[in-house]
Amino acid sequence: MNIRHDRLARVQARLREEGLIALMVLTHDDYRYLFGEDRFQPRALVPVEGPPTIIAFTGEEPEIRASLAEAGGSASGGEVLVFGSVGGQIHDVVGMLRDLVERLGAPGGRGPGGKARVGVQMWFETPAFLVDMFRKVNPEIEVVSSDPVMDPLRMVKDAGELALMTEAQRIAGVGMDRARRLLRPGVTASEVAAEAEYAMRRAGAEGTSTPIFVTFGIDTCMLHGRLSADPLRAGELAIVDLTPRVEGYCANLARTFVVGPPDAGQRRLLEAYAGLIPPVREAMRPGATVAGLDAVVARVLGDRGLAEHHVAGIGHGLGLRFEETPASTIIPGHRHVPLREGMAMTIGHTVLAVPGFGGVRHEDVYRVTAEGATPLAPYPIEPVIELG
Amino acid sequence: MNIRHDRLARVQARLREEGLIALMVLTHDDYRYLFGEDRFQPRALVPVEGPPTIIAFTGEEPEIRASLAEAGGSASGGEVLVFGSVGGQIHDVVGMLRDLVERLGAPGGRGPGGKARVGVQMWFETPAFLVDMFRKVNPEIEVVSSDPVMDPLRMVKDAGELALMTEAQRIAGVGMDRARRLLRPGVTASEVAAEAEYAMRRAGAEGTSTPIFVTFGIDTCMLHGRLSADPLRAGELAIVDLTPRVEGYCANLARTFVVGPPDAGQRRLLEAYAGLIPPVREAMRPGATVAGLDAVVARVLGDRGLAEHHVAGIGHGLGLRFEETPASTIIPGHRHVPLREGMAMTIGHTVLAVPGFGGVRHEDVYRVTAEGATPLAPYPIEPVIELG
Repeated sequence: MNIRHDRLARVQARLREEGLIALMVLTHDDYRYLFGEDRFQPRALVPVEGPPTIIAFTGEEPEIRASLAEAGGSASGGEVLVFGSVGGQIHDVVGMLRDLVERLGAPGGRGPGGKARVGVQMWFETPAFLVDMFRKVNPEIEVVSSDPVMDPLRMVKDAGELALMTEAQRIAGVGMDRARRLLRPGVTASEVAAEAEYAMRRAGAEGTSTPIFVTFGIDTCMLHGRLSADPLRAGELAIVDLTPRVEGYCANLARTFVVGPPDAGQRRLLEAYAGLIPPVREAMRPGATVAGLDAVVARVLGDRGLAEHHVAGIGHGLGLRFEETPASTIIPGHRHVPLREGMAMTIGHTVLAVPGFGGVRHEDVYRVTAEGATPLAPYPIEPVIELG
Repeated sequence: MNIRHDRLARVQARLREEGLIALMVLTHDDYRYLFGEDRFQPRALVPVEGPPTIIAFTGEEPEIRASLAEAGGSASGGEVLVFGSVGGQIHDVVGMLRDLVERLGAPGGRGPGGKARVGVQMWFETPAFLVDMFRKVNPEIEVVSSDPVMDPLRMVKDAGELALMTEAQRIAGVGMDRARRLLRPGVTASEVAAEAEYAMRRAGAEGTSTPIFVTFGIDTCMLHGRLSADPLRAGELAIVDLTPRVEGYCANLARTFVVGPPDAGQRRLLEAYAGLIPPVREAMRPGATVAGLDAVVARVLGDRGLAEHHVAGIGHGLGLRFEETPASTIIPGHRHVPLREGMAMTIGHTVLAVPGFGGVRHEDVYRVTAEGATPLAPYPIEPVIELG
């Protein structure tokens, strides 16, 4: 365990500013960000003041206590609360929260219902039944989204985070090299995925943040892919989308290929997509918004007569979560979040798809700088696979 | 797409019996169970009467419409509702639900707040923020757990489901063979995981339902593992836990190994675990409960002086979800659900761990029969790896 006391202190300061009594950690990314390791069921409570409490299954206790002691003294490092079931784990925090409310009141005022507020990450990974259970056993607590507390800390990546994301993106390139070599008539999507995954694991990935998507032919229209069922045929489009992780940090590399000489329709989509990336990179600077970047995309596609196939949401934030603020295709309001220097964003999230024909996308991860977007690990766009 | 009209009809009958106006599908397992395929963001609404509606991103529409037509006529097959953002997807169901309430009233009576009720799977995969968003935009609807509707259909597996689960369990054995051959001093957990995953993919797995867990030494105490950081040393315990999937159906195979001759403490744990499996199998019959099976485990461990290390929850249900009802370590009430013939259950969920020393577990998937538990794909327990 590598407890990040600096980050915990910043979380506590943000909790104070937002008037929350605690952050309830229920997700891998929050847990990793604060405690520097992963756990199958990551659960912890970070109060607005005092040490955090890690909530662990019975058998895990000695190992966690040893890690905490190693990480810098038992008292300052944190407490461990042990439970025997997921139900128990939720019940046990009731007493802790009651003590906290008694001790602190509700700093910064109470919520609309006169209740003290606890922040929880309300995102894909946070299970609805745990939050409902939490609400039921803590009726005096209001659960609010922890985004206002955590986003200011998490959106801009520090040097260590960017190094891990760059390594993850480099590994995605290793997987893409492997996938590209396999794209020949008759290969299955499942085979391409297996080989790319293996190559990325061997190169240092700890897994992927989404399934590997490999789609052929008309399946390339899917906004997010899957594994196509039928083998690849000569002349078809193929999209490979890879998301390896390194110490929890996510990469995202998607490339579209065509097996053999592209026809006019394929060429038109491939050229349009390649053509929209440079102006979006140019526009991706501090103060820009995804809505603004989408306007650039709309202009480029409009000039090429492809306006009707424009899908909004050209990029999204990522880090320890695969989609972080601004998650422009998930939360419409995120389209207007101003970008900041040092953020990690993708370009290439949306597919340029002609329904019934096929789609194209090339996605990479960039760092936002005052001079525009800089790719973490550049990877070539060379879509045409020669049939020898 | 392979729409399961038989299952949809049974869901609608159960919705009627439970007095719900619809099932809102937000998870891969429900979607797969009813529509016979997977999708990145599976979303559908199954009303108590009439065709279901599949909710899809813009670019996916033609592909889904084609699948629906192929699956058996556009009108009877289902409807497609198209959205452009996750926020939009939730907003768009508002109108559908309002129409449904107007048309049907609230069959079977309304909930405590006088509201019509919609069932949602409240489990790990259901995102809390989607459910909260759904509640916010549908204030006239009460969200209730869909377990009472779906559990009676999903708990007992049909022959097709058991065949897929048997194949998944067989593939887990392929991965375990590969892992076992690598367990030598100096190997890393990451290498074992990469090779086992690759072997399972090659054997037909579409991925795994949890990360692959490979733990060495004291890390074997963890109830659910992770990848140990330090390489394996001679004399250490090692646990490998594999969860490949086939068409969404889950397997679960865990084995504990010791690298070289076991010491007395290791031998004691290994013998105790191997010794508890036959009586639990014997007891796993229709009408038994996990609480009853745990009593068997407690007796066996007590006889061996290991009572204090007993952790409750020796088995759990599985199928299209990695943990299904009875999910005995997650929902305490599930400990008392009577087992039924044809259910698929694991034995070996809990680790027998001596804190600070190490742990042992061997987990397999069984079918519940009137003669006790039958393993889907038997795999040997041969823990001792000879150092040559």
